[in-house]
Amino acid sequence: MAATDAVRTDDPTRRAPAPLAADPAVLRAFLDGPHAAVRDEVRDALVEHAALLDERLDLPRAELRRRVRDLVVEIGSSGRAAHGFPREYGGGGDIGASIASFETLAYGDLSVLVKSGVQFGLFGGAVLQLGTRRHHERYLPDVLTGRLLGCFAMTETGHGSNVQALGTTATYDPDTDELVIRTPDDASRKDYIGNAAEDGELAVVFAQLEVGGEGHGVHAVLVPIRRDGEVLPGVRVEDCGAKLGLEGVDNGRLWFDDVRVPRENLLDRFATIDPDGTYRSSIENPNRRFFTMLGTLVQGRVSVGGGAVAASKVAQEIAVRYALRRRQFEAGAGSEETLLLDYGMHQRRLLPLLARTYALSCAQQEVARRLHEVFSHDTPEADDRARRALESRAAGTKALTTWHASEAIQECREACGGAGYLAANRFAALKADTDVFTTFEGDNHVLLQLVAKGLLTDYSSDFEDLDQFGMVRFVTGLAVDTLVERTAAHQLLERIRDVLPGGRDSWDTEAGILDPDYQLAMLRFREEHQIAGVARRLKAGVGAGTPAGEVFSAVQDHVIAAARSHVERLVLEAFVERVRAEPPSPSRDVLAALCDLHALATIEADRGWFLEHGRLSAPRSKAITREVSALLRRLRPVALELVEAFGIPSEVLGARDLVGP
Amino acid sequence: MAATDAVRTDDPTRRAPAPLAADPAVLRAFLDGPHAAVRDEVRDALVEHAALLDERLDLPRAELRRRVRDLVVEIGSSGRAAHGFPREYGGGGDIGASIASFETLAYGDLSVLVKSGVQFGLFGGAVLQLGTRRHHERYLPDVLTGRLLGCFAMTETGHGSNVQALGTTATYDPDTDELVIRTPDDASRKDYIGNAAEDGELAVVFAQLEVGGEGHGVHAVLVPIRRDGEVLPGVRVEDCGAKLGLEGVDNGRLWFDDVRVPRENLLDRFATIDPDGTYRSSIENPNRRFFTMLGTLVQGRVSVGGGAVAASKVAQEIAVRYALRRRQFEAGAGSEETLLLDYGMHQRRLLPLLARTYALSCAQQEVARRLHEVFSHDTPEADDRARRALESRAAGTKALTTWHASEAIQECREACGGAGYLAANRFAALKADTDVFTTFEGDNHVLLQLVAKGLLTDYSSDFEDLDQFGMVRFVTGLAVDTLVERTAAHQLLERIRDVLPGGRDSWDTEAGILDPDYQLAMLRFREEHQIAGVARRLKAGVGAGTPAGEVFSAVQDHVIAAARSHVERLVLEAFVERVRAEPPSPSRDVLAALCDLHALATIEADRGWFLEHGRLSAPRSKAITREVSALLRRLRPVALELVEAFGIPSEVLGARDLVGP
Repeated sequence: MAATDAVRTDDPTRRAPAPLAADPAVLRAFLDGPHAAVRDEVRDALVEHAALLDERLDLPRAELRRRVRDLVVEIGSSGRAAHGFPREYGGGGDIGASIASFETLAYGDLSVLVKSGVQFGLFGGAVLQLGTRRHHERYLPDVLTGRLLGCFAMTETGHGSNVQALGTTATYDPDTDELVIRTPDDASRKDYIGNAAEDGELAVVFAQLEVGGEGHGVHAVLVPIRRDGEVLPGVRVEDCGAKLGLEGVDNGRLWFDDVRVPRENLLDRFATIDPDGTYRSSIENPNRRFFTMLGTLVQGRVSVGGGAVAASKVAQEIAVRYALRRRQFEAGAGSEETLLLDYGMHQRRLLPLLARTYALSCAQQEVARRLHEVFSHDTPEADDRARRALESRAAGTKALTTWHASEAIQECREACGGAGYLAANRFAALKADTDVFTTFEGDNHVLLQLVAKGLLTDYSSDFEDLDQFGMVRFVTGLAVDTLVERTAAHQLLERIRDVLPGGRDSWDTEAGILDPDYQLAMLRFREEHQIAGVARRLKAGVGAGTPAGEVFSAVQDHVIAAARSHVERLVLEAFVERVRAEPPSPSRDVLAALCDLHALATIEADRGWFLEHGRLSAPRSKAITREVSALLRRLRPVALELVEAFGIPSEVLGARDLVGP
Repeated sequence: MAATDAVRTDDPTRRAPAPLAADPAVLRAFLDGPHAAVRDEVRDALVEHAALLDERLDLPRAELRRRVRDLVVEIGSSGRAAHGFPREYGGGGDIGASIASFETLAYGDLSVLVKSGVQFGLFGGAVLQLGTRRHHERYLPDVLTGRLLGCFAMTETGHGSNVQALGTTATYDPDTDELVIRTPDDASRKDYIGNAAEDGELAVVFAQLEVGGEGHGVHAVLVPIRRDGEVLPGVRVEDCGAKLGLEGVDNGRLWFDDVRVPRENLLDRFATIDPDGTYRSSIENPNRRFFTMLGTLVQGRVSVGGGAVAASKVAQEIAVRYALRRRQFEAGAGSEETLLLDYGMHQRRLLPLLARTYALSCAQQEVARRLHEVFSHDTPEADDRARRALESRAAGTKALTTWHASEAIQECREACGGAGYLAANRFAALKADTDVFTTFEGDNHVLLQLVAKGLLTDYSSDFEDLDQFGMVRFVTGLAVDTLVERTAAHQLLERIRDVLPGGRDSWDTEAGILDPDYQLAMLRFREEHQIAGVARRLKAGVGAGTPAGEVFSAVQDHVIAAARSHVERLVLEAFVERVRAEPPSPSRDVLAALCDLHALATIEADRGWFLEHGRLSAPRSKAITREVSALLRRLRPVALELVEAFGIPSEVLGARDLVGP
């Protein structure tokens, strides 16, 4: 074979496409989306506090925590944390703006970001979403101005992803009309809780509610844990100590030794205890109630995803600017050394990451838009299907964005060599601080299983509701019929083929590689094929009487692959749609090329699958690789504009050693 | 397609292979290799100093550095650093033992490892390899007992990988019979130099040697930089400050302002200045001289590779033990929750990494064995080809092991969820400290280019010699004929086919998937095909008159892929050979299964390429994926023994939260 292959043509002028020219302002407007003004406000604030980025390098942990706390309080008092809260409590009533603000904050120190997220997003969000008017009136004004710092005490040492199995109990005592909060064992201590070690005064504690001897599942209760800096009686606090990153956040553990709070401290939007001690909920089914409660907290995942994309942008701008300054090894005797970004491999390392970053930015904006829509026209029971689809999209996008951040930051750090290892050049903090994003607000693999479950049930099943994980239980309870209908997925493929150039049979060999409809059809085909395959395998396993646990274990990687393929399709779709909506301009051509690069690099990365399933021929697969290389060369001249468009103030970008003065 | 695919069979008893049973002692002997006793000594020492692993979490940088320095000095005074040095200076004369010792040290704190490496490996190694008897006698006894701490001052801010272009000068002054060391500009300051910021007293400085107005290229000179803790006149030192990791190592920058040292301070094994001021070298060609000097320092790369594998073992043992304790989500109503490692996806995440770790351990032992052989029967000019092949193998193995370490540690950290993020559980340090391994002792991409160049020239070219990078120069100087011969690579493929079951045409469709000869032939085919392809593309580009820089840039990713494929083949070969040499036993069956898993996972990861190049059919490709899944289920019951075999003392493993008491 080796001797007969045609020599590959590497002539960059093969198709002689017009050189690209980009206007960073147009690209920036594209990325900033509808909340550019909010983002600019945050940019200004970041510049004001940029000194922390350098100073933190030599601050002891205790002092760093203080600095970070002060900044979070100042974010609150400036009103910048209030965008997403109702106007009547001093908020802005604009959820989209609050996501945009949070995302932009991620250009700066990530301890500040995460501590803000804990305070205003998780803690404030829980009070808002799970509480009722009396909680809102009493707490929200203080929460969102940073006067009352709090915790979101959900995770326990023994149970992270499986929230339904938490061990902490909240038992109603009719004699005193109080709830008694108890940590029955060390596995049930609250763990990794932000704001718990030092600053939090009030905690939203998730616990198994028992009323009149009957368990009603996990509910949220407000429990004071500190007053004037002193831990309250019955509460035990332990500092989680040194962490891999986010050292400015005071994570801690909490134990409750029969701590009593008034009945009114139950956050009772979805279930309440009447004055006569009767438990009452508008949602009959306990699972459904639980997942409805959790579902209201979806903004946390959307925020983490957005923060991850933003943090990856900081790394990429540094690496691209470095690659446009740093020369190494002369091209010929006596000539000047070559810029790193003029090396083909360096382009391969950095530019597809940039393309993916643009794609994920579009996907993230789409999630934020839907979040805004669903939560702005609010009754939680209203459109269950839309809510579940949103939760699924948020979960999947969070998984892909956070993995992307880890990967991109690592690649950029390596692309900056030894200098990338110095803490002053930002990568140390970027790597360490974002590392936990892949596991917090839901472990990414668990989240993708949630996505898969939604796909398998078309968001309409009610037998187990949207469990965070529970795929094994799901398989156990599997009604074979539920999946049969879904297996009709192949009908969708027929439709795809019909609309594509070349008709039903040859769409994939005749369509232009650079046709977004072809690219999307490829990703759709993969997604549908994989979901149908998972459905068949689950069905076959359950039908054969194999224990559910075994069936699921054997199919699990397929389940996760299917979910990932689904989200990849959503991401490309979001990018394609945004580019199509853009008015014609040279910058739009840049975006189109970037979108092609993202689409083809995504197909290329999984070309083994497409070849196995007859959707790529060997020559076409090789053609895609050549096209990716051609796109890299085309985009190389606009690399600087692509990162300038992030709009990261240079004071915040830092890394002077790498990016220059 | 979706509806007509056969349902995949996931029945684990499909081939009913015998259950595996492993004896950790046998596996440990396999991994420890010929220097088990040396490794055990280091294990004992690590237990003695295990407290540092916890204490370091809260130590300020200055104090951590002191602790680390004291430990390095104690390693020296205990004689444990002397294995590789000649007996006449207090050493053990056993290079293999010194590698084994260094590797095992990597189970502990990695600042101690790296600072030891700087002191005994780089600094001591340079004095030994580049110096002559007078340097050995005067310095080695103090160096290898840790009484004289020193630096290896090669890298400059402006030049990392391209050492030949260093800016520091060493000018011979015949009037005073001295060498004058000068840093001409800030780009030429020595940067990231271990031991420079605080502890080093003597530095091996790499500088452009000028004698009588003539430049002779880079040479190494001994330059005192401190006495009794005080920086000497003419030397300027700056602390590199906070780093991503390895905070116990005092990296610094050095400037020399016409610092004068006696002529005898030139490390003059390969070139000397006579008393009359004449430059004289046994190696005429300056390039060849330079690369011969550098080549003697190959042990550094071998050490880093070994350290990376060992560090990844710590992460994997923690993650596997955690996955065998942690239960999450019950399999059915009321049943116990499922162990993480019983989830198929969790097996997919961890077990192929383990298999690869065993493979890389074998590859690493093979490099160490060859290093020992070449350097124990020593005349540097003797067998150039063997030396170059060793350098290439060391470079390639270092690239693969260090990337593997980054990947494995990251995956293991994620597989331990939130608890993995706490510094007490080891991952923080493992991640941060090993991160630089991918770029130090040579950036991995640059190293793979060195490998590719060796392959293209069959280690026999002398026109540019073994440059560390310089592929562009290489292409510029390309004699088309040089490559033609190499393009005969396909003849090798013919030979491979001849020896394989099924004969020339069908070997790849009829051979058993679990036949190591088949697996190796697949990797050999890929390697040869890619090297031949690179040769043809370079030839075509140069032949067409395209500027060398452009030709190289376009082919660079292909070059790196070819080099990687070569090293992958060496790795599998080393594993297969070691397993074949093992006497029959149940543990050998475990190793054989692990070797199959590694081989098939490697092929699976690049199945796109094999499908594109007609070496896999779609059904066979899918069969490989099924076989990988079957191997995961087979190996699951011996997972604990596979990590016990690393022989990491539990005090050193730490991470009690994760692995239990």
